[in-house]
Amino acid sequence: MTSGLINKCGRSSNDLLHLARLCNNFYLGAFKQNECKPLYFGKFQIGLVRKNVEKILQKYESIFHIRKEYISIVHDENISSKIDYVLREIKGKYPHISALQGWRDENYNIKAYFSDSEPLLKMERSATCLFGLRQYGVDINGYVKHPEKGMCLWFQKRSHNKPTWPGRWDNFVGGGLSEGFGIFETAIKEANEEANVPNELAQKMQPKGCVSFFFESERGLFPQTEFVFDLELPLDFRPTVNDGEVEEFELLSIDHVISRILSKDMKMTSCPITIDFLFRHGFINIFNEPNLPELLELIHIPLHNIYNVRSTEED
Amino acid sequence: MTSGLINKCGRSSNDLLHLARLCNNFYLGAFKQNECKPLYFGKFQIGLVRKNVEKILQKYESIFHIRKEYISIVHDENISSKIDYVLREIKGKYPHISALQGWRDENYNIKAYFSDSEPLLKMERSATCLFGLRQYGVDINGYVKHPEKGMCLWFQKRSHNKPTWPGRWDNFVGGGLSEGFGIFETAIKEANEEANVPNELAQKMQPKGCVSFFFESERGLFPQTEFVFDLELPLDFRPTVNDGEVEEFELLSIDHVISRILSKDMKMTSCPITIDFLFRHGFINIFNEPNLPELLELIHIPLHNIYNVRSTEED
Repeated sequence: MTSGLINKCGRSSNDLLHLARLCNNFYLGAFKQNECKPLYFGKFQIGLVRKNVEKILQKYESIFHIRKEYISIVHDENISSKIDYVLREIKGKYPHISALQGWRDENYNIKAYFSDSEPLLKMERSATCLFGLRQYGVDINGYVKHPEKGMCLWFQKRSHNKPTWPGRWDNFVGGGLSEGFGIFETAIKEANEEANVPNELAQKMQPKGCVSFFFESERGLFPQTEFVFDLELPLDFRPTVNDGEVEEFELLSIDHVISRILSKDMKMTSCPITIDFLFRHGFINIFNEPNLPELLELIHIPLHNIYNVRSTEED
Repeated sequence: MTSGLINKCGRSSNDLLHLARLCNNFYLGAFKQNECKPLYFGKFQIGLVRKNVEKILQKYESIFHIRKEYISIVHDENISSKIDYVLREIKGKYPHISALQGWRDENYNIKAYFSDSEPLLKMERSATCLFGLRQYGVDINGYVKHPEKGMCLWFQKRSHNKPTWPGRWDNFVGGGLSEGFGIFETAIKEANEEANVPNELAQKMQPKGCVSFFFESERGLFPQTEFVFDLELPLDFRPTVNDGEVEEFELLSIDHVISRILSKDMKMTSCPITIDFLFRHGFINIFNEPNLPELLELIHIPLHNIYNVRSTEED
């Protein structure tokens, strides 16, 4: 039983549940109130659009058809580049739309289903949250079985220069799935780029499913699915800063891990990955977590079933 | 990689997803179409009622207030016994309501939240599906690490006398959480009752979270949460039939496990537990399951967030 360990850091049984609810503030809030319009591409609902974004899209009627109940993207063989043009214009004209100020020059593939081989369209990564498009990423739990401290997890401190969550603590390694890279391939690449994990060691990471949640911030909507990996690291392994995106690394025992994810210094949207790790390794269990079903459900929100397929195409 | 193992049994990559969708036929179907009325007790929505049941409840207006948008149960300090009286009457008067024909004389605690210590009311177990009340159970994955066959799982064949899913294959051990029994306690009890697992061995089972799904059958609605346990069994352990609820046991290697859960001989609503096991032990992973996020989401449906709390009490 690990309840002693967990209680040592002084959490009440509702702290983790509160955190998991915050990570789903859109799912539990504006989504239920139908405050956003569905965004369709053909018969596929690919996103959700907030009123402030809809107002701007009204100016681009040749690309976005705005109806009373929904918005649809027109069919056009050059649609990806046309949207790219529009987004660059919006970025210049509307500097208060903060999402686009973090322009990354990195394309996301927008698919109807994750398993589709061909994307419906491509879009600059920083813009996806304006349209509530699903985002996929990878996250690696770098852990050590310490002879005295027991299970320990490596955390990284994000660089102060990062466009999102600057200076916050984050999981060991993480990154978005970009055009042209597979899931495992992305994880290996990020492990090397962010923490200097040699390829031979990184190859040992184990795929452990995924977490899904639906977060909303001032910047936009984040229906997020993260593929998670566990990587056991040797006791003497020290991750080192490589690509300027990380400031430092720290190894924490489980009671400190829980304090860390409950603190305001942590990137909130990385917490579901740590909560999933704590579940899978038995640190959160029926003996110490009275809200276990709700907590587990909130890190596996059915994003695939939020977006519907229309039976007829009206646009 | 286990894709070879899984492909050996000839499944297409969509088979497991299809199965997980069937287990959520209510969540993906009638629920989205708002075909049922919410059932409230005070400010808490505790269930959902189908039209055929609503018609019968109209005859019991002193207990069930039927409104245009919802149904509410009246406040009364003897409400549990009053409902019990009504249910026994319905059982006699309406033999086509098949759920009540499986009357068990076993009370379920109906709570607003699982973590509440006090129930709002108690109700006979066989009736809960008529009101779409949340049901909780335990399920034990009894596994063996076989020197040649690798990971193997024990399955039980349900007795032909059981009121539900008679003669179907099922997971090793399972049972509903009844009034007065804790989660772990129920699991130990069921392991002994169904498979003659000695207490000392049963105590070694590991709690591994839960699965949640929302199934509908002719009998009623099943918003189901199952707490899952893994129990490693010695190679020479043979479960034996004990309480008349089980006909036989069979040990299956992973490729046969997958064929079994995909077959019509299996109790469908037990499959999410096996799918969860296959995920947790790496047999379903990013390398062999293109629909991994949707499959994982469908065994963790957010039942806690389907039922809402009303801000005002009108009844």
